[in-house]
Amino acid sequence: MEGYVLKLATERKSIRAYSSEEISLSKVLYAIRAALQAPSGANQQPWSFIVIQDPKIKEEIRKACESGERRFYRMVRGGLREWLESKGLNWEKPFLIEAPYLIAVFAQLGKPFSIQSTWLAIGYLLLALEEVGLASLTYTPPNPSEISRILGAPRDMVLQTIIPVGKAKGEKKKEPRKDLEETTYLNRWGSPLVSVVKET
Amino acid sequence: MEGYVLKLATERKSIRAYSSEEISLSKVLYAIRAALQAPSGANQQPWSFIVIQDPKIKEEIRKACESGERRFYRMVRGGLREWLESKGLNWEKPFLIEAPYLIAVFAQLGKPFSIQSTWLAIGYLLLALEEVGLASLTYTPPNPSEISRILGAPRDMVLQTIIPVGKAKGEKKKEPRKDLEETTYLNRWGSPLVSVVKET
Repeated sequence: MEGYVLKLATERKSIRAYSSEEISLSKVLYAIRAALQAPSGANQQPWSFIVIQDPKIKEEIRKACESGERRFYRMVRGGLREWLESKGLNWEKPFLIEAPYLIAVFAQLGKPFSIQSTWLAIGYLLLALEEVGLASLTYTPPNPSEISRILGAPRDMVLQTIIPVGKAKGEKKKEPRKDLEETTYLNRWGSPLVSVVKET
Repeated sequence: MEGYVLKLATERKSIRAYSSEEISLSKVLYAIRAALQAPSGANQQPWSFIVIQDPKIKEEIRKACESGERRFYRMVRGGLREWLESKGLNWEKPFLIEAPYLIAVFAQLGKPFSIQSTWLAIGYLLLALEEVGLASLTYTPPNPSEISRILGAPRDMVLQTIIPVGKAKGEKKKEPRKDLEETTYLNRWGSPLVSVVKET
């Protein structure tokens, strides 16, 4: 089966528009089961997940996120602003109600490498979602503590991302990625892989 | 192929002892190719990789890491110290020379969600290494900037981890993981999944 992880990784793209098609909760839970197998600092498994399907809670989350986004979009400047505009992104986050499920992911403060471990597990989660045919987005609200409060999370659990999960609405191209040669060196910074890559 | 990502995730465990068996560089590069497909903040792809096979550089890295580890082990207290002792861990890091390859992973300062994105990509990397039959460990040295200097990395590239890659020496059990029910709620913090999990 060599080549399958690269295939999933390559086919997976961030999706911001979701159809109303229902999906099976068991597929979402399958992906979380994969994430739970990730390594973590001192095996502390500092992550928690909330799967949100209740439309009222999704609407509350959307309102809170969009109010944070309005503040953010008033302030953002420079290269990031240009990138957001070039992608047609703005403060509106309809995917937070359109996607049949949201997965809120938390990292527990005070655990070793808590944020790093949790995002590593999110990598597992995204590939497992792709495997079961589900689109996703790692959406990071500008006001995570407001969302944590809505969800009733304890204060030491820090919201890392809200991942909408469902079927993509319409077509979308994957944003291009850099090549191996642009990102990877051999033995020392700046020493190209070229000679060895040709063998592979 | 549903079930394959969970299988890889479940079978993959952190390995600290490596055999001297040679492995193909192309397999290591395969896994980095998968990591390069990960999503990132504003698609900035803030990661860089150095694949280290030169024994002299590995030895330099080992020495620098072990000197940082000696300082760390003199200071560490509490639950983390107990955990380290229970696992028989100390300042010695022979895997840094025993593994045929090390992958140094960097995150670029100043990019949006740079650390989060890079660790998400590390999640992709670990699953792809497992797929091609390679053992790994996300080792985080206590003195990353010293290692960056040895590798000649620019100052805005922050070393996140050094991943030894190779074949495991001997047998090792995977550390246990928490269950879905211990880590995942439905709609709100504390609201159990139980009723829906039974359907799946």
